[in-house]
Amino acid sequence: MLITELNLALPAWLRQQLSTPPASLPDTEQRMAWVLQLARQNIRAGTGGPFAAAVFDAEGQLIAAGVNLVLSSGLSCAHAEMVALSLAERQLQHFDLSGRQLQLVSSAEPCVMCLGAVHWAGVSELVYAACDEDVRAIGFDEGYKPQDWAAALRGHGMRVVPGVLREEGRAVLSEYRTHGGAIYNAGMEAP
Amino acid sequence: MLITELNLALPAWLRQQLSTPPASLPDTEQRMAWVLQLARQNIRAGTGGPFAAAVFDAEGQLIAAGVNLVLSSGLSCAHAEMVALSLAERQLQHFDLSGRQLQLVSSAEPCVMCLGAVHWAGVSELVYAACDEDVRAIGFDEGYKPQDWAAALRGHGMRVVPGVLREEGRAVLSEYRTHGGAIYNAGMEAP
Repeated sequence: MLITELNLALPAWLRQQLSTPPASLPDTEQRMAWVLQLARQNIRAGTGGPFAAAVFDAEGQLIAAGVNLVLSSGLSCAHAEMVALSLAERQLQHFDLSGRQLQLVSSAEPCVMCLGAVHWAGVSELVYAACDEDVRAIGFDEGYKPQDWAAALRGHGMRVVPGVLREEGRAVLSEYRTHGGAIYNAGMEAP
Repeated sequence: MLITELNLALPAWLRQQLSTPPASLPDTEQRMAWVLQLARQNIRAGTGGPFAAAVFDAEGQLIAAGVNLVLSSGLSCAHAEMVALSLAERQLQHFDLSGRQLQLVSSAEPCVMCLGAVHWAGVSELVYAACDEDVRAIGFDEGYKPQDWAAALRGHGMRVVPGVLREEGRAVLSEYRTHGGAIYNAGMEAP
């Protein structure tokens, strides 16, 4: 019997938190601190990799939050950014998030897949904490990204803000490594 | 109320077809012809963009099929390859498809997001019909891809086979354009 339907839910601890929508966070660093706290909770609850992301509107109101769910969902594409962007699109009932001054705040620099997702979703701003080299340093293979990907997104009118609370972002990754968290790269061995 | 759950189903016409699993297709061109037929049906049924993809095992048995569902699902990430890979992972109950000699057959060259998804899923072979320039020619902005992305995937041990039934793939794209199908790029206008 072939499977023809997909479903994906945020972990119970996060659904519980979001049942009372958080107060708006006017400042980008506040938003990042909130996102990094989600990434830590995802590690401690054992619900996925050490990553979280969220979409905020211009007033700092949360539109959608996501955490990495690769391990718990069994889906390699269930990265925090993909989850947050998809939930934001469902929340706003449109596949195109552009023209709404939305900000994607991610605990780490997006991998090649998530960069593509950011491109298609059309958020106005991408902000991240830990950088690509920090993520690779704990063993994740983030894929083959063009060196000048940020310039390309900026060329489309998107703001890209790297390294906001980077040290705190690196500390989240370190916690995952220290606790022996799974590094879920595909094997992709030569045949 | 914040949305905390995602779901995505193949269109009814495709679920109906897959209720009887297709006979195995030993030849890659046969598999591509089957996938291109799905892309045409997706256009004619009005269920999404002019793209389809499927995952086959080494004997040519279908593991999962996907079509582009951006318009019908309201999700910008619901590209055919993402849908097919995710359904394959659910079918095989693992986020890592590597080591199983699985082939992803796509009606068109993957965009930057789907290239990343292929990397994370770890299929052994990627085969596509229409090329990047064919997809861009009808107006889709496929994102900023490194010129040598195929070499990078090959460096991970993946086979990449471009242009299988390319003319037929281009004909599918032409049909979509002729019928006035929506080009669903994000706006991403400069603010």
